[in-house]
Amino acid sequence: MLGPNNYGKAEVRIVQVRRDDPHDLVDLNVSVALAGDLASTHLTGDNANVLPTDTQKNTVYAFARQYGVDSAEAFGSRLARHFVDSQPTIQAARVSIEEYPWRRLGPHSFARSGEGVRTATVTYDGTAEWVVSGVTDLVLLNTTDSEFHGFIVDRYTTLAATTDRILATAVRASWRHTASPSDWTDCYLAARAAMVEAFTGTYSLSLQQTLHAMGQAVLASAPGIAEVRLSLPNKHHFLVDLSPFDLDNPGEVYFPADRPYGLIEGSVLRDDAPPPGLAWGF
Amino acid sequence: MLGPNNYGKAEVRIVQVRRDDPHDLVDLNVSVALAGDLASTHLTGDNANVLPTDTQKNTVYAFARQYGVDSAEAFGSRLARHFVDSQPTIQAARVSIEEYPWRRLGPHSFARSGEGVRTATVTYDGTAEWVVSGVTDLVLLNTTDSEFHGFIVDRYTTLAATTDRILATAVRASWRHTASPSDWTDCYLAARAAMVEAFTGTYSLSLQQTLHAMGQAVLASAPGIAEVRLSLPNKHHFLVDLSPFDLDNPGEVYFPADRPYGLIEGSVLRDDAPPPGLAWGF
Amino acid sequence: MLGPNNYGKAEVRIVQVRRDDPHDLVDLNVSVALAGDLASTHLTGDNANVLPTDTQKNTVYAFARQYGVDSAEAFGSRLARHFVDSQPTIQAARVSIEEYPWRRLGPHSFARSGEGVRTATVTYDGTAEWVVSGVTDLVLLNTTDSEFHGFIVDRYTTLAATTDRILATAVRASWRHTASPSDWTDCYLAARAAMVEAFTGTYSLSLQQTLHAMGQAVLASAPGIAEVRLSLPNKHHFLVDLSPFDLDNPGEVYFPADRPYGLIEGSVLRDDAPPPGLAWGF
Amino acid sequence: MLGPNNYGKAEVRIVQVRRDDPHDLVDLNVSVALAGDLASTHLTGDNANVLPTDTQKNTVYAFARQYGVDSAEAFGSRLARHFVDSQPTIQAARVSIEEYPWRRLGPHSFARSGEGVRTATVTYDGTAEWVVSGVTDLVLLNTTDSEFHGFIVDRYTTLAATTDRILATAVRASWRHTASPSDWTDCYLAARAAMVEAFTGTYSLSLQQTLHAMGQAVLASAPGIAEVRLSLPNKHHFLVDLSPFDLDNPGEVYFPADRPYGLIEGSVLRDDAPPPGLAWGF
Repeated sequence: MLGPNNYGKAEVRIVQVRRDDPHDLVDLNVSVALAGDLASTHLTGDNANVLPTDTQKNTVYAFARQYGVDSAEAFGSRLARHFVDSQPTIQAARVSIEEYPWRRLGPHSFARSGEGVRTATVTYDGTAEWVVSGVTDLVLLNTTDSEFHGFIVDRYTTLAATTDRILATAVRASWRHTASPSDWTDCYLAARAAMVEAFTGTYSLSLQQTLHAMGQAVLASAPGIAEVRLSLPNKHHFLVDLSPFDLDNPGEVYFPADRPYGLIEGSVLRDDAPPPGLAWGF
Repeated sequence: MLGPNNYGKAEVRIVQVRRDDPHDLVDLNVSVALAGDLASTHLTGDNANVLPTDTQKNTVYAFARQYGVDSAEAFGSRLARHFVDSQPTIQAARVSIEEYPWRRLGPHSFARSGEGVRTATVTYDGTAEWVVSGVTDLVLLNTTDSEFHGFIVDRYTTLAATTDRILATAVRASWRHTASPSDWTDCYLAARAAMVEAFTGTYSLSLQQTLHAMGQAVLASAPGIAEVRLSLPNKHHFLVDLSPFDLDNPGEVYFPADRPYGLIEGSVLRDDAPPPGLAWGF
Repeated sequence: MLGPNNYGKAEVRIVQVRRDDPHDLVDLNVSVALAGDLASTHLTGDNANVLPTDTQKNTVYAFARQYGVDSAEAFGSRLARHFVDSQPTIQAARVSIEEYPWRRLGPHSFARSGEGVRTATVTYDGTAEWVVSGVTDLVLLNTTDSEFHGFIVDRYTTLAATTDRILATAVRASWRHTASPSDWTDCYLAARAAMVEAFTGTYSLSLQQTLHAMGQAVLASAPGIAEVRLSLPNKHHFLVDLSPFDLDNPGEVYFPADRPYGLIEGSVLRDDAPPPGLAWGF
Repeated sequence: MLGPNNYGKAEVRIVQVRRDDPHDLVDLNVSVALAGDLASTHLTGDNANVLPTDTQKNTVYAFARQYGVDSAEAFGSRLARHFVDSQPTIQAARVSIEEYPWRRLGPHSFARSGEGVRTATVTYDGTAEWVVSGVTDLVLLNTTDSEFHGFIVDRYTTLAATTDRILATAVRASWRHTASPSDWTDCYLAARAAMVEAFTGTYSLSLQQTLHAMGQAVLASAPGIAEVRLSLPNKHHFLVDLSPFDLDNPGEVYFPADRPYGLIEGSVLRDDAPPPGLAWGF
């Protein structure tokens, strides 16, 4: 029996230049996924209901020229609606976008800036639309104001309690909108700033506590945000034992480990948040 | 309001040597995720209910010594059950394992072999257990017996129909068990072999059709497999246009593109497959 | 016959926190390579002349505590000199350092910033020392002021001449010092700024011309810099052909390709630059 | 002053299908670098002497069709000679090729196999040609027959001597030919097999000793090989301390670390090896 399925073109890279004075650019990685009446291509290879992924790619480029890219959210919405509304066989579309940041260096010059990648995912089923915004690869670190103690001790415990540690993470956050803000980019910047401020301003007894503060801050940044999901690796920084060399190490020299790492995932939502529908997946 | 959440140690790397004659080794990447009564660490930083991720890591290593690793599935099950059964505050555990293949070169010598990574995910909630096996990074290619035509044509179509193309993909597949096989490794090898045979043996009119054949083959390989989920990138190989150089190109010289790529995702399940419960996620 | 050889510990990750007001941190990836009287370990496995790589790692951490990290160049120099001066069997040492940038967010908070990684390589042979500074992964883009035409045309030419294209690269640059500046970090920042200014300010007829301007700018930024080596990928941005959709594309919608890419490598040096010695390799 | 420079197209991906019975395929990543009379493009942007990198790419594809790919070495030689011999302004060319292995599954079906990538680099200056063959990403592991002791002990030593450890590495090896073998692929396979046999068969007192044995084995595999260069990371496998859990660990449970790692580099050459010329770099 054929179960749920979808298909699309992933990672369509597009750079759009706005030749105003000064020039501006937007740098996107667009992925499309479509679902619908697709049983026949699965069962017999009859493609009469299939809009090729190559055509999806062409549409991304053509729409950028025809309509421009106001924001990742608006561009994703336009694309998702097009695929469903123009194709009777396509019943739902999800457009996921990564937007890479660039910093202006001059009237037509830019440097790729690495402080996180903006994300947007728009899902449309012919009736309702779900918009999720977010950020990924935003690496934050506090050198102090982080403790961890009072945890369960069992046979396999060796971890010592600590009242001062480095807390570092690479933020992956997504927030679901129930209303469109007047400006998607302003909304993104406010949510992101609130989240960063919560990370830096929270005296942390666990990364979970920090996560919750960050989620609450995002909700507080805009009334139209109903839910936030965060995935926060605990990027461990281990104090190096220098005692074999007759040296102390008063919170100074750390080994930042690659693997393994803690991974804390959680969500914060308003009491009156509506059901997520297709916001988080087909 | 705090929503669903979980936490754990990700990517615990472990190599276990069995010093029999000949030696053998197993090479795993183990990730643990726990859920339960964790509101207080989120809301106040009270960690009384938290089993530290460091302890989870220790448990992985200790269990490997105490009980050995019969198979990724059995090892994952033992760990998942331990965390839930030994900790009143932990109500569900998911253990996800990647197993890297090595080929024997001699009585104590091995070469890392790259044909895919075996995966296993075991979820346990104190009562029921869900076991999912799978493979990832298995790259397959047919040089012929693949067509693609008869698709929708719209304003944005430029793709030409073809009756002979290269079909290549990097298989990511997972299958859900409703009964434990007598030998997890035999079951894995049979499912994998069936899937590869379906890829190579299917005359393909669409990658969806190949996906469906692969899913059916996995189901047919073992009665205890109820559902298969596949994610197949279409790794495009474009025929290079050599006509500017007065050369033909009869299906000989291709440019394998990195991005964008098609992405086909689908599932195949038995008519009587039970609901998935927590098999695919908390 | 045993030929040239070296050994060492690669990628020792270290984060050092300075607990002043405000806190500061330095984030390094240190690699050590040693050469000397090492024939016996190669030929017979006699390790009497070998300083283990584990000890090298320990030394990196201990020196950070004992002496601090003033700059990557000074820290590398101290380490390189130590290995050669303290071990009769070690005749030359190279210490290569990557320094990851962080941006201050608060008195003890930081965000990982992605605009390039600072590099330093110090080589010492017991008598002379060579210091090379540099930057890598600095991605720059001009939306205009770049042409490319007048090139050789042969049987295999299909490229059209252009008088307006996007020029983008990921800078990898290294510069060799013949004198120590008063402040290594100031020197780095000045060289980097000069290079970026040359990229943005050069009306470019070829990426080679831009490379040369960047190299000259680095030389001009400090009298103690004798040579600059640059490796500049030409990160192609191809204008998408929208004519099949009855759309023009006046320098607006581009496809940034991953592979293949042009790669331009060149050096600029002062007329009176001394020979490089071991600056660029053992 | 303009110093040494070169330019070219990097990472031209090509898959060539031979439609015999059964089908066969070759999968290459080709990089070209050219040097010559290129001062004017650096100094003034005059490109009259520049063969565009786009043309180099076209030539790779056209030559694959015109002449086929007998071996990476022969294909690289043909390309390198073409660029120098056909262009008066190009005085030297280097063609570097990675060849990805595929394992046959059927008459037109293949699986990407991961046991190492074959490499070839051909350099030609209009008169002489240098051919280097090699392998990279070949991961090997011995579970025993490896010791490490008798090393220097200083203030920073904490490493314990061991008489039984895991020895693992990812081989990166290149060997320089002074004569062309009758069959490049046979020669590659013999050199590689000799190297693997030396790794598995050497009772090792240091990774340097193993490296030397591997280099000697490659030299012994073919009279036309004059020099071998090896770069061997010591992929550390640390025995996990299970004593806190009242468990012993008799060489059974290991943590394979990512970073830092030892890195051993060395060369082995015949007594009568001629000077390398441009074999290892412009």
